[in-house]
Amino acid sequence: MQKNKIGSSASPSKKTVKRPRTKKTASVNNRRSNNIVDSQPKLPVRIAFLGGLNEVGKNMTLYEYGDDMFIVDCGLAFPDTEMLGVDLVIPDFTYVERNKEKIRGIVITHGHEDHIGGLVYLLKSVNIPVYATRLTAGLIEGKLAEHGILNDVRVNCIEAGDTIKLGQFEVEAIHVNHSIPDSIGLAIKTPAGVIIQTGDFKIDSTPIDGEIIDLARFSELGKQGVLCLLSDSTNAERPGYTESEKKVGESFSNLFAKAKGRRIIIATFASNIHRVQQIMDIAKNTGRKVALSGRSLEYVVEKAATLGYLRIPDNLLVSIDSVNSYPADKMVIITTGSQGEPMSALHRMAFSEHRRVSIIPNDYVIISATPIPGNEKTVGRVVDELLKLGAEVIYEKMYDVHVSGHACQEELKLMLGITKPKYFIPVHGEQKHLRRHSALAQSMGIPKSNIIIADNGKQVELTENRISVVNEVPAGKVFVDGYGVGDVGSVVIRDRKRLSDDGIIVVAVSLSQGLLINADVISRGFVYVRENEELIETISSACEKVINDCLYDGITDHNSIKNRIRDEVSRLIYERTKRNPMILPVIMEV
Amino acid sequence: MQKNKIGSSASPSKKTVKRPRTKKTASVNNRRSNNIVDSQPKLPVRIAFLGGLNEVGKNMTLYEYGDDMFIVDCGLAFPDTEMLGVDLVIPDFTYVERNKEKIRGIVITHGHEDHIGGLVYLLKSVNIPVYATRLTAGLIEGKLAEHGILNDVRVNCIEAGDTIKLGQFEVEAIHVNHSIPDSIGLAIKTPAGVIIQTGDFKIDSTPIDGEIIDLARFSELGKQGVLCLLSDSTNAERPGYTESEKKVGESFSNLFAKAKGRRIIIATFASNIHRVQQIMDIAKNTGRKVALSGRSLEYVVEKAATLGYLRIPDNLLVSIDSVNSYPADKMVIITTGSQGEPMSALHRMAFSEHRRVSIIPNDYVIISATPIPGNEKTVGRVVDELLKLGAEVIYEKMYDVHVSGHACQEELKLMLGITKPKYFIPVHGEQKHLRRHSALAQSMGIPKSNIIIADNGKQVELTENRISVVNEVPAGKVFVDGYGVGDVGSVVIRDRKRLSDDGIIVVAVSLSQGLLINADVISRGFVYVRENEELIETISSACEKVINDCLYDGITDHNSIKNRIRDEVSRLIYERTKRNPMILPVIMEV
Repeated sequence: MQKNKIGSSASPSKKTVKRPRTKKTASVNNRRSNNIVDSQPKLPVRIAFLGGLNEVGKNMTLYEYGDDMFIVDCGLAFPDTEMLGVDLVIPDFTYVERNKEKIRGIVITHGHEDHIGGLVYLLKSVNIPVYATRLTAGLIEGKLAEHGILNDVRVNCIEAGDTIKLGQFEVEAIHVNHSIPDSIGLAIKTPAGVIIQTGDFKIDSTPIDGEIIDLARFSELGKQGVLCLLSDSTNAERPGYTESEKKVGESFSNLFAKAKGRRIIIATFASNIHRVQQIMDIAKNTGRKVALSGRSLEYVVEKAATLGYLRIPDNLLVSIDSVNSYPADKMVIITTGSQGEPMSALHRMAFSEHRRVSIIPNDYVIISATPIPGNEKTVGRVVDELLKLGAEVIYEKMYDVHVSGHACQEELKLMLGITKPKYFIPVHGEQKHLRRHSALAQSMGIPKSNIIIADNGKQVELTENRISVVNEVPAGKVFVDGYGVGDVGSVVIRDRKRLSDDGIIVVAVSLSQGLLINADVISRGFVYVRENEELIETISSACEKVINDCLYDGITDHNSIKNRIRDEVSRLIYERTKRNPMILPVIMEV
Repeated sequence: MQKNKIGSSASPSKKTVKRPRTKKTASVNNRRSNNIVDSQPKLPVRIAFLGGLNEVGKNMTLYEYGDDMFIVDCGLAFPDTEMLGVDLVIPDFTYVERNKEKIRGIVITHGHEDHIGGLVYLLKSVNIPVYATRLTAGLIEGKLAEHGILNDVRVNCIEAGDTIKLGQFEVEAIHVNHSIPDSIGLAIKTPAGVIIQTGDFKIDSTPIDGEIIDLARFSELGKQGVLCLLSDSTNAERPGYTESEKKVGESFSNLFAKAKGRRIIIATFASNIHRVQQIMDIAKNTGRKVALSGRSLEYVVEKAATLGYLRIPDNLLVSIDSVNSYPADKMVIITTGSQGEPMSALHRMAFSEHRRVSIIPNDYVIISATPIPGNEKTVGRVVDELLKLGAEVIYEKMYDVHVSGHACQEELKLMLGITKPKYFIPVHGEQKHLRRHSALAQSMGIPKSNIIIADNGKQVELTENRISVVNEVPAGKVFVDGYGVGDVGSVVIRDRKRLSDDGIIVVAVSLSQGLLINADVISRGFVYVRENEELIETISSACEKVINDCLYDGITDHNSIKNRIRDEVSRLIYERTKRNPMILPVIMEV
């Protein structure tokens, strides 16, 4: 398949509305079609949720009208601790594969992993055109190249204000604020009405790139009539407004002053380009050089700079390899690892395993992020280790060094208020977030009966006068482990859990013509064998006895003997140790 | 050994100062000896930290003066997620065992697991007299009985105000507020000076049991001169004051009113007897019955009631088995599981696995606790499941349904201010807590050089004019797994980790007189074998080839063959799957 160059606008299925990024006027907006031919009888729109509900991550929504379908986003989720050995979790693509002839494309709202991380796996299975804004497309491109499918996929570049036609759908991209540039929300026009899916968003009145979320367009759509709103619930529990990204810059300015004479190390999300921009600008103004540490950060910075989303001041960047040839007070290191991730650059610094950066008491470390639920302990450990090395560490809610990328309650209410949807579906979040968002919508006058709290695998049907769950579609968690996609499931995970709790005992038995030749007991992850020889000996004798008893009783069927070994060894071990290792008898007949 | 009855005060090594619990006057305080014979040359006091520093949990401190030693607390810690299969973590007792002739006893500050949970394991190894207040002793007694050593141990009952003589140490118990009744701090009088160890504490002006922390006594000691203060750092990062437990009662009253007509379910820590008392009192006043669910809760409630720490109104308690025979609006269920623990009663309710309680939309659930760092996700999941069942759930910081048991910054400053210690050692907490507490002490005028941030395994030496770390003692983490104590260590954990990540492949080979008879490949926790027969087949062939190559090359040594199998199978599997399962070759010669 032909792949459009990033930044090119030529695309057969795309309605091109080219205009300068910074000039948005009502007249331009008015050029977009809002009315679709009304001659045919109206069908219902169906929305299937393949991920992102009752969870944080792997967002994926599938819209269906008649014979046309298209997808919004295809993210990944990071495994829970009980998903042992799993690298990533992606949505189940069964329903997409089943309908691949109908799929007209996939539109991506922004370049975060929970919105693009599953895409390469989807595209390997179903090759459909991708629509994304320039930066998002650039990040996707990197992933496609990594997986060797860059030349097989068509990535169409769009920009906020554009409308693309996907079968009977017309999908308009609307600029929103978020913690990564070039994020969009979508107005999805169907014969049944207009559906707005906000994507991840916040309202930032002083965004770093100068463009406030396009509230005018959302309002205009609201005035024309919105059938249904799907809105970001991530921060639905938080009252008030999310602070502007600019606030973080102000805090950084103050902290840079406090850290005078010292080396500054700032950990942040690689994709938060606006924050990187602010750090670079302040570094420039305070006469410091900037070095980057962490592969994802280096990649994103290079990409963003190339595409014009990051303005790196001249002579500012230096290699991390040369970091020690600059005086401490002339240096800022930006690093990954703000979530305490074990292999990240900051983690390596904290545990004195970083190739180039050794933490000393003269270091001033800023962790510019809030721990994602589940990461509190890992982040805490990194903080502790940095402190032990003598560094000063700014973390958590100290000094406003982080703001969220998601709308809080007042912003969510504003979005509900200006789009005035008839129906409402809260998306992106756990049950508690969805519930709270539903309560907010009710407080804004939307009747409870017009709100659906859906779930992954539910298909919601929308007409002008009705919203209901009509169907179930396959939508489980698919585990990626190494190269394997879906070859590790609940049975394998259950085995891993048991192995991880108490280890394994292999009983290797050789039989010859109804006689026991040998029985070996080998354990891994069970006990220190050298200090427990007596126990291993007891297990070994017990095995020999069981086998001889079997043979004496005329039982020669291997499965029966294995079961007897398993029962006897389990019983013995539980009695002696109160543990339950996996018992794996292996019988060889010679 | 003889065991004193709980509540008895006869103890050979105890200086009995009996007086009514509720009457504490300066004159009574004055009766306590504060001066120890001064004729001998003063030796230094040594304090060894066997747990509780740079961690939350397994608190244990050992004091040493000349030939006398005594211990304060012996707690457990809960395993981190990477301590696979470990049930509990306890301190390393090597240093205690090495000095057992010198140990005069162990004093317990209160009955929480992080202060008493390691005690049974210690006492099994070193039988020393235990000193604890009545409720604490009662809870210890339960553990001793469970481990079958109740009759072997001497538990001496003390109360706040008492002073006990342990060799040349005189240890005075001082009443403090905490989230369990009968908590004490200690004034440890030595010829070198007085050391105060606060234990876990807060300052509660309106405690449920009517007794405010004995600030007068701490002040008096401060006026007389305190050589060193060891103080609770748990909340050193939190500004202000910790709210009174009474505040929770007020919130409960409001929530009971809101929940009118509905069943109320409240999850709280089993040991928070004051909270249970408040719930029971409000239940009584609102005409509701109370049922308990959760073994630890039932145990603690029974114990506390028997010992007079909990006043259960007549006819209030009903069995959880009869919970469904009462109208919903006449019922309160108090349950364990406020941390989302997988086997707890609340977890079972949330996942519809509770024997008696089925959650319905008419339920009003209050989680009266804050997630301990690391538990946020588990608690979140329980909340989500309860919400999905339709219940209303009050959690986290909603409506003040929980207050901490630990002092915040202003209280910590007050403690520093009234005890006026010359030297200061922050204890109980991670590095960030210890650092912050040290900064608070400095802000109160204690010079930085008079503060030691110690670590587990450090021994601090104190004289009238000097504080310094002088020694290292063994103080690692000892893992308890089933009945095994210390038989699972880093090697076993490393094996479990590898097993949990990618599973195991057992290659069972039988050889006879230099010929390969059979090679079986069996995997667990690796892939779905049925869907990956080709891969297993490839591994099997590769093994056969390796073995035959070995035999052809005249290599018959089993270890060499095993290494070759391991290398080849690892390489092949990594190339095909990018995974790294444990490879376990078993060779049988027949």
